[in-house]
Amino acid sequence: MTRVTVGMKSVSVRDVLAGEEPLEIRVQGASMAVTMRTPGNDFDLAAGFMVSEGVIAQRRELTSMRYCAGTGSDGVNRYNVLDLQLAPDVPAPDASVARAFFTTSSCGLCGKASIDAVRTRSQFNVADDPASTSAAFLVSLPSRLRDAQEIFARTGGVHAAALFDAATGNLLVMREDVGRHNAVDKVVGWALREDRLPLVGTILLVSGRASFELVQKAAMAGIPMLCAVSAPSSLAVDLANELGLTLVGFLRDPTFVVYAHQRRVVVEECESSPLPALEAHDD
Amino acid sequence: MTRVTVGMKSVSVRDVLAGEEPLEIRVQGASMAVTMRTPGNDFDLAAGFMVSEGVIAQRRELTSMRYCAGTGSDGVNRYNVLDLQLAPDVPAPDASVARAFFTTSSCGLCGKASIDAVRTRSQFNVADDPASTSAAFLVSLPSRLRDAQEIFARTGGVHAAALFDAATGNLLVMREDVGRHNAVDKVVGWALREDRLPLVGTILLVSGRASFELVQKAAMAGIPMLCAVSAPSSLAVDLANELGLTLVGFLRDPTFVVYAHQRRVVVEECESSPLPALEAHDD
Repeated sequence: MTRVTVGMKSVSVRDVLAGEEPLEIRVQGASMAVTMRTPGNDFDLAAGFMVSEGVIAQRRELTSMRYCAGTGSDGVNRYNVLDLQLAPDVPAPDASVARAFFTTSSCGLCGKASIDAVRTRSQFNVADDPASTSAAFLVSLPSRLRDAQEIFARTGGVHAAALFDAATGNLLVMREDVGRHNAVDKVVGWALREDRLPLVGTILLVSGRASFELVQKAAMAGIPMLCAVSAPSSLAVDLANELGLTLVGFLRDPTFVVYAHQRRVVVEECESSPLPALEAHDD
Repeated sequence: MTRVTVGMKSVSVRDVLAGEEPLEIRVQGASMAVTMRTPGNDFDLAAGFMVSEGVIAQRRELTSMRYCAGTGSDGVNRYNVLDLQLAPDVPAPDASVARAFFTTSSCGLCGKASIDAVRTRSQFNVADDPASTSAAFLVSLPSRLRDAQEIFARTGGVHAAALFDAATGNLLVMREDVGRHNAVDKVVGWALREDRLPLVGTILLVSGRASFELVQKAAMAGIPMLCAVSAPSSLAVDLANELGLTLVGFLRDPTFVVYAHQRRVVVEECESSPLPALEAHDD
């Protein structure tokens, strides 16, 4: 490839690109979903997807995962199909589970129906989680995420999600992917496989925006606090408010905006003169 | 909501959030897909999705679109379900069209199979498009996109896609959405509804990364050049190379990287002393 700079000589460059390959997730042989993902931590990704979709919520409910034995025309296993076995007492999901999630209200489909669906399907209640954190700790998280991002330093092309313990401040896990949703599914799947669900007392940090689906994934895993480096959407804020989940956006040291359930964020204010109220953030 | 700055007094802020609501797309009454999208330009979004999935490629193949007449429990139409009617000679798509797209090779699922699927399904051939553009013109595009982004200035939370005419330099259309894929589908759907497919001689600019799916969407609409402000993925580069589509990444005035089919980018180089070759981009 070639790097072009206007008015200067073009130079050939070698680049390290973020990998992207399809992964098909099957449950007991039936195809559930195909996602474009960065290869790596595929078991975490598939397990986390099952949690996000409300199929499972405990490690014992997922008895095994294996790459499908099929190969390409060159005889090489592509490692792009995973088959999951569930415990006998777990109802096998409908093949259209992902789509059915949003279509419960037939023609009255709306944000409120989507919110109701999350509340109905989640086995965990984050509203009562007593975790709290300081503002000073929150603003330190983005740099800690960047430090942990090995792939990012090479490609600049992946999203990251990191899970922190609010009480100890420890980074519990960090996962990356070309897809924002996949990075969070990988974190949640790691937690399921470590038998840590629900993730009480934790903070999930994502490198991009906070969409409805990311709030949903946090809630399905019992995470009481979601922080995003960029903006949340309106429906993400609505869902966080409904579920009792603390939602922070525009987290960029030394500042952030709390969009829902500020009670978990302890702010130690100086006695400095008050600032004029802002009409809107300045990002 | 509250803006917190460490060491300073917290302030209440009013914020304008990017809207996000589910949209269900139906074809002749059968549910095809549900996407989380920013309301607005829904007809463009649904039409573009049909083009991206290979269901239609010409305006005459889409005879009508209407919001489903259903209402919520409060009697208000949610405007979140669109029903599309296709021309009688267009085969009705399988309900699982989106998923089937990637599952043609059964267990041998891999990036190559995905690339083959795009080549098979696209009705247009971008490889022979003789369009070309200057490097100086390319680097001017991001600022022109930002100028056109009305929503972005208010929320900082949406993605944008813009289509330019390579010969005249004109901005043809700009669309925004909380989802990157949706913004491109809205551009493509606009073009279908304007009866402009295939989009020969055009340049598509996206505000984020260039994923496999964005290259696919460009190819399905006959767009010969895709430019991204951030990094492409490896599979996106592979697909662009295979299809003869020019792919530019890290487009940030005054520089960019050409990842595939540089022949459409005319670089006027100065006679300055050559730079040392870079090992990797410095973004």
